[in-house]
Amino acid sequence: MQALVYEGPGRPILKDKPMPQLAAPSDAIIRITHTTICGTDLHILKGDVADCLPGTTLGHEGVGIVEQVGDAVRNFRAGDHVLISCITSCGTCENCRKGMYSHCASGGWLLGHRIDGTQAEYVRIPHADTSLHHIPDGAHEEALVMLSDILPTGFECGVLNGKIQPGGTVAIVGAGPIGLAALMTAQFFAPADIIMVDVDEHRLAVSRRFGATHTVRAVGRAAEMAVLELTGGRGVDTAIEAVGIAATFELCTAIIAAGGTVANVGVHGGKAELDLARLWSHNITITTRLVDTAVIPQLLKAVQSKRIDPSTLITHRYTLEEIGDAYATFGDAARTGALKVIITPQGAPA
Amino acid sequence: MQALVYEGPGRPILKDKPMPQLAAPSDAIIRITHTTICGTDLHILKGDVADCLPGTTLGHEGVGIVEQVGDAVRNFRAGDHVLISCITSCGTCENCRKGMYSHCASGGWLLGHRIDGTQAEYVRIPHADTSLHHIPDGAHEEALVMLSDILPTGFECGVLNGKIQPGGTVAIVGAGPIGLAALMTAQFFAPADIIMVDVDEHRLAVSRRFGATHTVRAVGRAAEMAVLELTGGRGVDTAIEAVGIAATFELCTAIIAAGGTVANVGVHGGKAELDLARLWSHNITITTRLVDTAVIPQLLKAVQSKRIDPSTLITHRYTLEEIGDAYATFGDAARTGALKVIITPQGAPA
Amino acid sequence: MQALVYEGPGRPILKDKPMPQLAAPSDAIIRITHTTICGTDLHILKGDVADCLPGTTLGHEGVGIVEQVGDAVRNFRAGDHVLISCITSCGTCENCRKGMYSHCASGGWLLGHRIDGTQAEYVRIPHADTSLHHIPDGAHEEALVMLSDILPTGFECGVLNGKIQPGGTVAIVGAGPIGLAALMTAQFFAPADIIMVDVDEHRLAVSRRFGATHTVRAVGRAAEMAVLELTGGRGVDTAIEAVGIAATFELCTAIIAAGGTVANVGVHGGKAELDLARLWSHNITITTRLVDTAVIPQLLKAVQSKRIDPSTLITHRYTLEEIGDAYATFGDAARTGALKVIITPQGAPA
Amino acid sequence: MQALVYEGPGRPILKDKPMPQLAAPSDAIIRITHTTICGTDLHILKGDVADCLPGTTLGHEGVGIVEQVGDAVRNFRAGDHVLISCITSCGTCENCRKGMYSHCASGGWLLGHRIDGTQAEYVRIPHADTSLHHIPDGAHEEALVMLSDILPTGFECGVLNGKIQPGGTVAIVGAGPIGLAALMTAQFFAPADIIMVDVDEHRLAVSRRFGATHTVRAVGRAAEMAVLELTGGRGVDTAIEAVGIAATFELCTAIIAAGGTVANVGVHGGKAELDLARLWSHNITITTRLVDTAVIPQLLKAVQSKRIDPSTLITHRYTLEEIGDAYATFGDAARTGALKVIITPQGAPA
Repeated sequence: MQALVYEGPGRPILKDKPMPQLAAPSDAIIRITHTTICGTDLHILKGDVADCLPGTTLGHEGVGIVEQVGDAVRNFRAGDHVLISCITSCGTCENCRKGMYSHCASGGWLLGHRIDGTQAEYVRIPHADTSLHHIPDGAHEEALVMLSDILPTGFECGVLNGKIQPGGTVAIVGAGPIGLAALMTAQFFAPADIIMVDVDEHRLAVSRRFGATHTVRAVGRAAEMAVLELTGGRGVDTAIEAVGIAATFELCTAIIAAGGTVANVGVHGGKAELDLARLWSHNITITTRLVDTAVIPQLLKAVQSKRIDPSTLITHRYTLEEIGDAYATFGDAARTGALKVIITPQGAPA
Repeated sequence: MQALVYEGPGRPILKDKPMPQLAAPSDAIIRITHTTICGTDLHILKGDVADCLPGTTLGHEGVGIVEQVGDAVRNFRAGDHVLISCITSCGTCENCRKGMYSHCASGGWLLGHRIDGTQAEYVRIPHADTSLHHIPDGAHEEALVMLSDILPTGFECGVLNGKIQPGGTVAIVGAGPIGLAALMTAQFFAPADIIMVDVDEHRLAVSRRFGATHTVRAVGRAAEMAVLELTGGRGVDTAIEAVGIAATFELCTAIIAAGGTVANVGVHGGKAELDLARLWSHNITITTRLVDTAVIPQLLKAVQSKRIDPSTLITHRYTLEEIGDAYATFGDAARTGALKVIITPQGAPA
Repeated sequence: MQALVYEGPGRPILKDKPMPQLAAPSDAIIRITHTTICGTDLHILKGDVADCLPGTTLGHEGVGIVEQVGDAVRNFRAGDHVLISCITSCGTCENCRKGMYSHCASGGWLLGHRIDGTQAEYVRIPHADTSLHHIPDGAHEEALVMLSDILPTGFECGVLNGKIQPGGTVAIVGAGPIGLAALMTAQFFAPADIIMVDVDEHRLAVSRRFGATHTVRAVGRAAEMAVLELTGGRGVDTAIEAVGIAATFELCTAIIAAGGTVANVGVHGGKAELDLARLWSHNITITTRLVDTAVIPQLLKAVQSKRIDPSTLITHRYTLEEIGDAYATFGDAARTGALKVIITPQGAPA
Repeated sequence: MQALVYEGPGRPILKDKPMPQLAAPSDAIIRITHTTICGTDLHILKGDVADCLPGTTLGHEGVGIVEQVGDAVRNFRAGDHVLISCITSCGTCENCRKGMYSHCASGGWLLGHRIDGTQAEYVRIPHADTSLHHIPDGAHEEALVMLSDILPTGFECGVLNGKIQPGGTVAIVGAGPIGLAALMTAQFFAPADIIMVDVDEHRLAVSRRFGATHTVRAVGRAAEMAVLELTGGRGVDTAIEAVGIAATFELCTAIIAAGGTVANVGVHGGKAELDLARLWSHNITITTRLVDTAVIPQLLKAVQSKRIDPSTLITHRYTLEEIGDAYATFGDAARTGALKVIITPQGAPA
């Protein structure tokens, strides 16, 4: 089969690989019908993710059809249409029993990281019973690729951790795909104001179309001043960090109202400063989280009832053969306006 | 001044009464600009509310302009446009400190019940600092009358107590004004399905316009069967009782899913049966609540940001002189299609 | 092997049965070292539990040693000392993923009910990975039998559902083993007052030893008056029903303070009356729950750190041969003073 | 009257000052019977608290007897024995209505900071109805001084914000009075392990007497290693920072388990580093808080029911005349072993 393989820092290579095989009775083999690229894949290619070894097939998002299941798999059988969670979870360890699947003792973020991933014709999914989800009949399957990672991430790490409330005030710093996922799911809780902060006017225009009530095109101190002015000097109830650098995190802690919550979503590679001299008495909460994807069933219902339309995040489509172009488009989003790109193996069933 | 006075069971009388006077340093006198009628007013007129004494001016909802404040009032002054909470709260007793204003040691539901109410040209508001709310500039003041009681009631007693979640399934039993208030505010939390149950097709049609995803025109066992069928036999995550009789309460306990919540909103005059033989192992929660109106600031923000439009609940308008017609229209809603009727004293400032 | 078998209403029979066999790859076979009798077992023997068929081995509590595991069992292996949860859970269905194991799609209360139970030398445990718990080295294994059902039930259904808080006021109606389990675990949250209500002076004396701050020896209206007097007329913040009849449930709803919670623990066979005319405005919460045993890991830690000593619930000890005497003693607790009785198969490893 | 007055950086001066007078109808004048010194008073004397102006009477803790009340005070009258909250709150502003009294629009930390405080014979308390608490008959009044600030601070900022649970693992970094207050109130929730970290062996010995299950005498990396070893490499569920410097805050973020909470209590004067490269995926929560004293009623009940004995925090006693010695003793705790020192004006009623 064809698979996009990480060969060390640089561009990945689309090449032939053997079909994945069942390795444990709780595994399943999935034929991929649609997958996508995540910002994290770009980090791997830069060499930033040391525990992703050369030879690994990339990708941790996707939908597909069950090809084969192990003897211990109870919830799925060959032919089922499934959504693949980016997080693999055993469902039985201490962290899984608490719903913290991201820190599963034998799971977590494995796909396209520690084991072969979804940017291929087939993928092996360990702990299939708790790492796959049935796709409802009649669903728009391509759009559900957005439920593998990006929408659960925006919702869990940003919106739920950020305790967004009806009538509340929210700032989302970073209007890339993950910021937009937070923006879409923030509206589940009817906040009064959602202020989107970015430097890219195109992304801010998209944000307004996606439901932002205000946009701020600025960084640093200028952004801080703009958000404080929009909130009468009070700051926001929830600030969502959706970039992953110190400056944007620190901006979030500068615009947070007393009693508010800073919810970090971004993937960070360094340290940030926390101004405790100002914050110690400010009654704030700061949260971090690797997505658990515990909300996928909830999001599936929200999609089926049309409370949210994930397909609006999709801007480009490619075949698996064209995945090099897909990476180029996604990697140069400032120019191409790419949000999420869909990749479909040739010959995948409709 | 003119005031609608309860003279014992039967029809109330619009008559001249002396202007209210400040009785404590924390009181305020409000000139009413708009008020309305509540189902509870009809209960009083039937003689169902024993502690409402003849001679009491009716009404516990309204907006107006501050005419005069006592020496201890800090947050309001003459000329301020204000929203009157149906619940009077001192802000200092044990229950108020918990946010349970409905059970304030020296407050609670006083207006139009234990003291003169708002269906008059002027009203005295005790504990003004914690029982009034500033109306934002530019607000549609008439519509804000819906924030005195009905929307906080639907939101607090039905939606918040019912723990509605994105992707969840909700049934609201009773599509009168209070059921519709629950329906409107339920959508703050993006549930997948909202099933409205009533016997009046007109009200169900209104419900669909207000956002119900399904309607069931039935009572008792037939309604139970219909809701179970709509939910694949599982029942609903949240059942909101918005009628106030045993049969509808018992229906709510029959359609609730394991792990779900029955939130009672209705005003009851008797007992209901609780089928503990079935329910003891069903992991359910049942809540009751007299509205606290703690959410009024939140609802004001939701209105200002256009997440909700309370004016859609208003179907009829009368002057205070015509309040007899207003009661007739509101009391015969099945024929008139009345939801909420607005009453405006003649000469009230715009 | 020997097993206590339900042969229809009446006394059960200790007889030879074939050893249980693995029936699914996720099963385990456990050699029982200690088991006990639950009030529910008495219900079965009265014929009250229709879906327990003649021929079923009784018992749903116990500790033991893993004899054999299926191919898909990852967390346990032969020789492990384990605590058996009274609730069997797959860990993968919708309810399990929410932690509501009691309503597991293929589990729930199975042992000694729908499949053979623990009052035997060996038992088969389905879904072993999520239905067993490792016993820490050095633990007092006999005492941990109390963690199979009774302590999780008192803690989850009574204490957690009852939202007990430091400084709060609690009444527990029923001072039998389950009421005492609620009493023991209530003290995890340092309530100011714990009022125990029962008619049996011996049980009340035990309650005082277990930490009750007040005891009320009365039923119905007299009990209601006594609790109200102890609370200055206010009622209690939490009322825990630990009997399972209408009168005690209704007592709980009569003594609950505004804003309080009635947590039902008792197993009911009929209906109760709910006085909504009084309660609708009382801001109360009523909960029901079949134990999920989600707290077993937490309780294991509390036992290991000596925050709680489950062995104090054990009053009598028998061999499996003597299980008839054990039932007689447990069934006549008013005379024997039995709380929980431990049953140990002869030859079971120490 | 006598009062201890801040005269700018250095030692304060005990001198004659005019009696305080009612300045608003909601004020009360309290005759102080017992007060104490807080670490914050030492900060003021160092000149670290710029908005405390020379001429201000120090002190924000104490109990006393109401001497006089303004016309609008409803809950207190002359002769009432009262506990003074270190936080003054109006009870009516947006933050007060949320229970966030520390950020009251016209209150917060005023006493001994922005207005004259409690280290005097008399003090004026603004917003008396919501800033004082009735002392129950028969209470040990001196001990209740610990409820003005230190116990609510340990409980709210450390224990409640830290979400301590039965069976959980807690580390408290800093075993001074505030760390000990957290230690005492942490036990309300029955955690399995409470690890106390400090460099002072005397304080650690006190901690063991107060209920610590483990003590670590180390700083920095050595402390981190010791806590990780005690927790099997997992870290703690709750880490409470009770010192107020960057190093101890950073230690808390180094020992926190995935899914855990760092609750900052310490008063900081600078910045700390947050290692987001490690923490972004760690599912942690960090909280800060200025005490709201919302828990004072709860703590009063806990004291009255003997769940906690605040008098154990008191090590020294002085008259107001001797307050200079009291400061010397408290300020040199390493040598004197002082925890909290009680100061009683001569001639104060018993």
